[in-house]
Amino acid sequence: MTDQSKSAVPTIGVFDSGFGGLTVLRALIEQLPRARFAFLGDTARLPYGSKSRRTIARYAAESAQFLVREQGAEFLVIACNTASALALDAIQEAVPVPVLGVIEPGAEAARAASRTGDVLVVATEATVQSHAYAAACHAKGLRALEKACSLLVPLVEEGWTGHPVTAEVIEIYLKELRAEAAAIGMNPDTLLLGCTHYPLLRRLFEGAVRPGAKVIDSAEAVAQAALGRFNGRAAARGTVQETEVHCFATDSVEKFERLGPRFLGRPVGHVELIDLGG
Amino acid sequence: MTDQSKSAVPTIGVFDSGFGGLTVLRALIEQLPRARFAFLGDTARLPYGSKSRRTIARYAAESAQFLVREQGAEFLVIACNTASALALDAIQEAVPVPVLGVIEPGAEAARAASRTGDVLVVATEATVQSHAYAAACHAKGLRALEKACSLLVPLVEEGWTGHPVTAEVIEIYLKELRAEAAAIGMNPDTLLLGCTHYPLLRRLFEGAVRPGAKVIDSAEAVAQAALGRFNGRAAARGTVQETEVHCFATDSVEKFERLGPRFLGRPVGHVELIDLGG
Repeated sequence: MTDQSKSAVPTIGVFDSGFGGLTVLRALIEQLPRARFAFLGDTARLPYGSKSRRTIARYAAESAQFLVREQGAEFLVIACNTASALALDAIQEAVPVPVLGVIEPGAEAARAASRTGDVLVVATEATVQSHAYAAACHAKGLRALEKACSLLVPLVEEGWTGHPVTAEVIEIYLKELRAEAAAIGMNPDTLLLGCTHYPLLRRLFEGAVRPGAKVIDSAEAVAQAALGRFNGRAAARGTVQETEVHCFATDSVEKFERLGPRFLGRPVGHVELIDLGG
Repeated sequence: MTDQSKSAVPTIGVFDSGFGGLTVLRALIEQLPRARFAFLGDTARLPYGSKSRRTIARYAAESAQFLVREQGAEFLVIACNTASALALDAIQEAVPVPVLGVIEPGAEAARAASRTGDVLVVATEATVQSHAYAAACHAKGLRALEKACSLLVPLVEEGWTGHPVTAEVIEIYLKELRAEAAAIGMNPDTLLLGCTHYPLLRRLFEGAVRPGAKVIDSAEAVAQAALGRFNGRAAARGTVQETEVHCFATDSVEKFERLGPRFLGRPVGHVELIDLGG
């Protein structure tokens, strides 16, 4: 497969521990409809969130090397919050191509959106425990308060993306988060969705925030950031006639094929099972 | 630690891929309050549900060997539905002590409870996909209809065990399940809880079933089954003054120590981190 690295059209590699990162791929396709994409979900070794930094770095580096060496990716987007938070440097060291994580672009979009400088962040427990979004926001002069919303990924995977129960759960989480923010004197006007599953809940989030508050989706933010970096290469090398997407997974291909289209907003096609070892 | 195998008091080993099996340990303690227990949660390698039968069998056999060789267990309870469904034979081959899974006793309790012979089973997606409860029920002359209730484990782990949202989710699942049962002419009078997290939702389930319907908890059922097998050994070898519980985990000791007491109904004490390899 390495002859694909000689393709006239540069490939963008997108990596996630699961298939939630397909929302990032979806946003990338909207920005770059005439590119070739290779997506890898390391589903055999998820969840990354409960594993050590060293283990996550090794897994993510192996996945990145597959995308670069086997799929000819000339640009990598890490569509996994845990890997972006804990292993971005290790991935960048493992491959000779530019690597873009999902956290910094999200924080940058929040900075651009917020007038008060106070931002709320919702994410999984593992992402919140890493405090990667808070750190990235602080580095841009924002105050950020994070909340783990552990029920939202299961609700999305159950397909309840417009369900009244999901709306109620989001109301409960945001009410708690706003109360915590008020208690420490924050005046938030921006909500940052810091999980790749949450773009599927964007309408419910937009219905639950206060009037005038902005909802920032880190999947969209990373696609915007990728656009700038990628356009130069694409212009120099040409593009494909229409979007090409190739999906790979290390396990659970059935679940990937069944749930993937909801996240990608289009068919995922045949998902190829690959083995990256233990 | 192998000298513990020479203890005057026989040890019961309890194994799960996570810590949900602590509800089984809780039921065992109620039946056998003067025994010594060693509980192992293979938290580094969960979830088992998405892995192949061969991999699960290897993981479960390694865990069983730890409990027998290192902790001196003379009797093993497999408090993990996936391992019980897919690897009970492999575990029994790997260790020279009696092994009891969680599925057969659950099905037996359902048989004893049901008058119509029609049973509903709620469980995780992986357990439902294995159809292990349906097969065990059918072997006893029951008709069984299974439903995956994927939101319930996350709701329990969020601590929402008495929350109105959880009650609503259970209502939705049971309504769907009853409609499916009616459509195929079943007349169910028994609900079998086929997941080690669900005993924490027992009151909500009891409030959601039809009047007169029985709720069977496979954790209680396996403890009843263990009682009969263990009493002979205990009578011959003596008992401890009070319950002794030693907990081990292969990862995420913090989460185990934080959530474990809810499942066990008592402090879990210090959870020892062990390494079973990859």
